[in-house]
Amino acid sequence: MATAAETAAMRRAIELAARGLGSTSPNPVVGCVVLDAAGRTVGEGFHQRAGGPHAEVHALRAAGDAARGGAAVVTLEPCNHTGRTGPCAQALLDAGVARVVYAVADPTPTATGGARTLRAAGVDVESGLLAASAEAGNTAWLTSVRRGRPHVTLKYAATLDGRIAAADGTSRWITSAEARADVHRLRAESDAVVVGAGTARADDPHLAARGAGAAVQPLRVVLDSAARAVKPGARVLDDAGPTLIAVAEDADAAHLTRLADVLRLPRTAAGLDVPALLGALHGRGVRSVLLEGGPTLAGSFVAAGAVDRVIGYIAPVLLGAGPAALGEAGITTLTEALRLDVSEIVRLGPDLRITAAPPAKET
Amino acid sequence: MATAAETAAMRRAIELAARGLGSTSPNPVVGCVVLDAAGRTVGEGFHQRAGGPHAEVHALRAAGDAARGGAAVVTLEPCNHTGRTGPCAQALLDAGVARVVYAVADPTPTATGGARTLRAAGVDVESGLLAASAEAGNTAWLTSVRRGRPHVTLKYAATLDGRIAAADGTSRWITSAEARADVHRLRAESDAVVVGAGTARADDPHLAARGAGAAVQPLRVVLDSAARAVKPGARVLDDAGPTLIAVAEDADAAHLTRLADVLRLPRTAAGLDVPALLGALHGRGVRSVLLEGGPTLAGSFVAAGAVDRVIGYIAPVLLGAGPAALGEAGITTLTEALRLDVSEIVRLGPDLRITAAPPAKET
Repeated sequence: MATAAETAAMRRAIELAARGLGSTSPNPVVGCVVLDAAGRTVGEGFHQRAGGPHAEVHALRAAGDAARGGAAVVTLEPCNHTGRTGPCAQALLDAGVARVVYAVADPTPTATGGARTLRAAGVDVESGLLAASAEAGNTAWLTSVRRGRPHVTLKYAATLDGRIAAADGTSRWITSAEARADVHRLRAESDAVVVGAGTARADDPHLAARGAGAAVQPLRVVLDSAARAVKPGARVLDDAGPTLIAVAEDADAAHLTRLADVLRLPRTAAGLDVPALLGALHGRGVRSVLLEGGPTLAGSFVAAGAVDRVIGYIAPVLLGAGPAALGEAGITTLTEALRLDVSEIVRLGPDLRITAAPPAKET
Repeated sequence: MATAAETAAMRRAIELAARGLGSTSPNPVVGCVVLDAAGRTVGEGFHQRAGGPHAEVHALRAAGDAARGGAAVVTLEPCNHTGRTGPCAQALLDAGVARVVYAVADPTPTATGGARTLRAAGVDVESGLLAASAEAGNTAWLTSVRRGRPHVTLKYAATLDGRIAAADGTSRWITSAEARADVHRLRAESDAVVVGAGTARADDPHLAARGAGAAVQPLRVVLDSAARAVKPGARVLDDAGPTLIAVAEDADAAHLTRLADVLRLPRTAAGLDVPALLGALHGRGVRSVLLEGGPTLAGSFVAAGAVDRVIGYIAPVLLGAGPAALGEAGITTLTEALRLDVSEIVRLGPDLRITAAPPAKET
């Protein structure tokens, strides 16, 4: 059984882990708290970026000799392999910790085995403490491991009557400053932000994350099958962050190759092949994708069964006309509808943020 | 200052008042608790139906002699006029209560003055206790007094992406049994339920209230400008409750006159004249109207500035196609949008109920 100090430490470790969201891919976010033999916190750390030290290493460095005989509390099973950094299991043994408590087992074949190594060396190892919370904090990465593709969040901002713009196309601003700031947080936590050609053309979006936590910019992705929506001078082509333009295999994209990374994808009836896009992004280390518009893009992802989470920012506004958030998704009758579970409702200024996801399935 | 016993009694009186919702029009809902001289509850009552005894009379009857020297706690200022029943102010004096505590002043010119009469007779009178809660319980009636037309609630059931039906028209059921039961409560609390011709034609709705609290059926109203949507045999024409078919002044409605009450209204570009309809309903004693569909009807009421409350039942479902809840409302650009305040969010099974209203204005 975990002690009260260890439970408190795990809560803190989960908070610490969240600071890495959007910066650690293709690695998970991980937080670690080291307690001394008396149960006092003597070191904290989180995984900050891929290639950098793991959470345990940060926390052990901070703890120094005080870790000896103490406990390491970690959100994910300590790794057992030498990648760009040495195995954490060995670092924990070197530091002389007597006990390791972790929340979630590492599901990756290369990294797993840390718990076994530690136990074999006589360390007292416990798993599963606050596992549900820790899993929730690592949803994107765990989903990407299970599915072999990035975790996809469909985000939209709409009126109470489901419109994302008025009849004349005006949409700035349907939602409040509070809701828009929250979107920047969401972007900062994502590895890639994706828009379709219609949105690129209509809004000339910048897609960079602003504000706190935006140290690492997401990859900005535009699906532009005909390679005609993104023009030289588009805001998405500036140097605020990396940019990828996905075009059809047969598109004439010569004018783009010097301005951004160009990805060629198979065409489908609805546009570009969604699984191929996700596969390519996964290959580039992208573990979490935020779909930012518009309805056609959203519809093609829903049709492809590739939406893991929906976040709707709903403003208490009525328009009576204008486009809907979600376009054609191949659903013609109610029994084919995509049914979700609401996981959270939050008020943001005058607006609501509704988070929903497909029901958990045995996979 | 009100005592703790009086405050508790007012809370109870507000609960009691709500039991009359949908049955008392054109009167308000009113609840009353009588306390004896020691502050113990000795009588309770609420106004059950127009023409029947007022809340105070029910409560005083229950209290009998125990009211003498005690206090009457009432949600609305006791009336001072002889209508179908005698003045409550006199009844309270006859019962010998020493103190009257009421929440909200009676704004109607004929009934006001009860407090003055009681004070003149030496009763200790206090007003304003839990006034906001009591007002909220009487919103429909107070709105109708202030505006000279019924209070209008726009209700819809939609998916998270704002659709009220799938592309093929299927809509049974987007929302859960819990949400649908809540709609029956809403109907039972309304004096009239209104649908447009499109809904009448597509759904052949019954519009009666089922379940607890449905003792008095709402007036079922169909806006059928051409008098072609409601056919003999339509479910809305059965004897479950009264029915009114509103048609254009020049419509041929001979086939309807023996089946329902027929109301002739001026035509407008969008259908029938909304203020004329509300005026006619007000004249018939209707104080609260529930708009139940479809998008055209909803749009015409929004365009007429005649929506006092919006209740959206939102199912966490995605469709990507199908009609929206609100149709053309004369709003072409975002600055003209109708902005509301969210007053309540409730989970009903898997669904959400979002209640919003136009910001309170000085009137």
